[in-house]
Amino acid sequence: MSFREDGYAAVDWVAGYLEQVGDLPVLAQTAPGDLLAALPDAAPEQGEPFAAILRDLDELLLPAVTHWQHPRFFAYFASTATGPGVLAELLAAALNNVAFIWRTSPAATELETACLRWTAQLLGLPPSWHGHIEDSASISTLAALFAARETTGRNVVVASEEAHSSVERAARILAMELRKVPADDEFRLDPSRLDAAGAAAIVATVGSTSTASVDPVPALADAARATGAWLHVDAAYAGSAMVCAEHRWAFEGVDRADSVVVNAHKWMATPMDCSLLWTSRPDDVRAAFSLVRDYLQTGVSELTSLSDYGPALGRRFRALKLWTVLRTLGRDGLQEAIREHVRLAQTFAAWVEEEPGWEVAAPQRFSLVCFRREASDEENARILDAVNASGIAFLSGTRLHGRTVLRLAIGSHRTTEEDVRRTWDALRAAS
Amino acid sequence: MSFREDGYAAVDWVAGYLEQVGDLPVLAQTAPGDLLAALPDAAPEQGEPFAAILRDLDELLLPAVTHWQHPRFFAYFASTATGPGVLAELLAAALNNVAFIWRTSPAATELETACLRWTAQLLGLPPSWHGHIEDSASISTLAALFAARETTGRNVVVASEEAHSSVERAARILAMELRKVPADDEFRLDPSRLDAAGAAAIVATVGSTSTASVDPVPALADAARATGAWLHVDAAYAGSAMVCAEHRWAFEGVDRADSVVVNAHKWMATPMDCSLLWTSRPDDVRAAFSLVRDYLQTGVSELTSLSDYGPALGRRFRALKLWTVLRTLGRDGLQEAIREHVRLAQTFAAWVEEEPGWEVAAPQRFSLVCFRREASDEENARILDAVNASGIAFLSGTRLHGRTVLRLAIGSHRTTEEDVRRTWDALRAAS
Repeated sequence: MSFREDGYAAVDWVAGYLEQVGDLPVLAQTAPGDLLAALPDAAPEQGEPFAAILRDLDELLLPAVTHWQHPRFFAYFASTATGPGVLAELLAAALNNVAFIWRTSPAATELETACLRWTAQLLGLPPSWHGHIEDSASISTLAALFAARETTGRNVVVASEEAHSSVERAARILAMELRKVPADDEFRLDPSRLDAAGAAAIVATVGSTSTASVDPVPALADAARATGAWLHVDAAYAGSAMVCAEHRWAFEGVDRADSVVVNAHKWMATPMDCSLLWTSRPDDVRAAFSLVRDYLQTGVSELTSLSDYGPALGRRFRALKLWTVLRTLGRDGLQEAIREHVRLAQTFAAWVEEEPGWEVAAPQRFSLVCFRREASDEENARILDAVNASGIAFLSGTRLHGRTVLRLAIGSHRTTEEDVRRTWDALRAAS
Repeated sequence: MSFREDGYAAVDWVAGYLEQVGDLPVLAQTAPGDLLAALPDAAPEQGEPFAAILRDLDELLLPAVTHWQHPRFFAYFASTATGPGVLAELLAAALNNVAFIWRTSPAATELETACLRWTAQLLGLPPSWHGHIEDSASISTLAALFAARETTGRNVVVASEEAHSSVERAARILAMELRKVPADDEFRLDPSRLDAAGAAAIVATVGSTSTASVDPVPALADAARATGAWLHVDAAYAGSAMVCAEHRWAFEGVDRADSVVVNAHKWMATPMDCSLLWTSRPDDVRAAFSLVRDYLQTGVSELTSLSDYGPALGRRFRALKLWTVLRTLGRDGLQEAIREHVRLAQTFAAWVEEEPGWEVAAPQRFSLVCFRREASDEENARILDAVNASGIAFLSGTRLHGRTVLRLAIGSHRTTEEDVRRTWDALRAAS
């Protein structure tokens, strides 16, 4: 078979998968080790045709796949890889560029620069900021806190107890100390309990993982200015909503940040992985990371090497999918999706509030609803497990004020009101 | 247009690109800023068809692409993304799995585990070792050295002066001190000059970036045992050669390592990014990285979360392309490619040695040849620039014993002896 024929077969497989994904159980109906036991113990001696891959994808792998593209995937932060974005990954893999310095891929370097300018503009960030792409918010935050440590010569990171675990992990990797600040009743960092003295960095979260709460960024920016700390804003999920004017309140003060991360693979229709990191202090980030290496010296004055702004030297051509998504959806398409997701979340929250025996468990923000049955933790955990095991929908849980809470996060371009309704029916039936 | 029609068009584009890539200038013939100036200042308001992407890919982007898939790409470490591996990236993007814990993608988690066992077996590593995939050797080494720091409670990394820059960068990120050991005349770490007292980690390089030299791993394993240091082996490039018995000498002693990195995206036909990291001490790596997070608690005993073995929480379904490559090439196909590349490198080295006025500048190892004109640094740099500017071939340089040296690295499945011959002709014509 030629590449072309194999390629058509792969496209047919993907088209069929995306057409039917809504009919599959969302959460993989498999037990740990099932797939591993079904796979051979060794790679084959001789090569096999690509058709064997597609066959085993259906027969062996698919039953072990949790369907992130399913319209009733509501766990963590739901997301969509839109069709054009998926195809852009094919193109990027074919070009196989490794953009560690400008000349190894001028296209990847300059398209990345352009797309980060476009996205900054879409989200209301200062267009002069330097932007580049990392694989995950974990790495973006690691890069920002490293720059903070190197720039300030200090060793303490201050963040809300509701900040993402990647902040704690980054601090540990960087040999920094994490000082956790209590959150208020609405899960926002409580600035009255903030002690930023001697801090290298303050992390503000815009859209926290548990509840999508928004920290008081202006107060944190004031504290950062007063203490000389670096202000890093983690807007991995909610940042994409800033394409809509009605959500811009949540970015008040962010223009005073030193760095901001927004994951395009979360709520900007881009396939995993595409974490956007901007900084207003590119020289400081670059000074932290850059090394001189004989085998990368070109003797030519060239544009920036984007590998000087993060921990990895090798960099994929991730900008291609972001460019493709921005082009094929446009600002209007991005806004439309965000608004529909928020409308669906508000609709679901209203259903919960109207239903006796159920309650919304945190202020409803963006496309996330935290809710619970007015019953024991065990009962809420049992409902969650029952719905997930049914395959009808996949939700995740968290703990708020010491209680087990369910989360419904909307982020798929395929989700309709009927999908949300079916999920609500399944939750009530399980209770 | 439907996804299917757009997909066929994308496959046609890729097929055409891969058929014609050998006719394009290898190094992008563009000046810094050219592409940036040709792109609009903002994302479009309304979405555009995918066809516009393919059009602009040809008209705007391609002139700014350095063609890593070109048969005369000989810079850094040349590589190939084989057709099936490229198609697997399409499949992975369509599934869009984010494998941070087992249940979010049992398929990605278990296929990754299986493929790392297969690959360990292919390369002669102990099959009991724990393996997982990171995006780059930079991150794999960061993970290993972090585990070393946490496990030993020490702060010094020892590595050859010829070790990859990612070791120095990782040490800096981890707030560790790098102690550089001089290399011998053949660019191998000189064990007689090793001081490993108090070291957290010793890094051994099997296939260094400048010359593909191989550090004396058994001596370094002895030193690690004597001092309690973690032994990390960086075999990012040369590790793939271990699929051939005749290269296994270079892995002598590696079975005593605590961690080993091999980049499948370098010399194992897999598209960027696919860095394989094994450890004989998975509990120590896991203890360093793992955190408890309410929103990831499932209450179910499940297989390992591979995100507990590296810095990023979000993880792409990278195993799919590795599985596809291993299946479609088989052990035989991997061996055949390695052997042909080594044969071509040896052939080129023989031509250089026979040619008056030229010399091989380091012992020829694997598929890399370091060589130079017996002339000034300026003359060698001029020859390198002239050949690269011609578009006929792309080579990189380095410095050895204080002199400018050219590197020819063979790694493309498309490279023929005729490609190597044409490059040699171009080099001589430029001198």
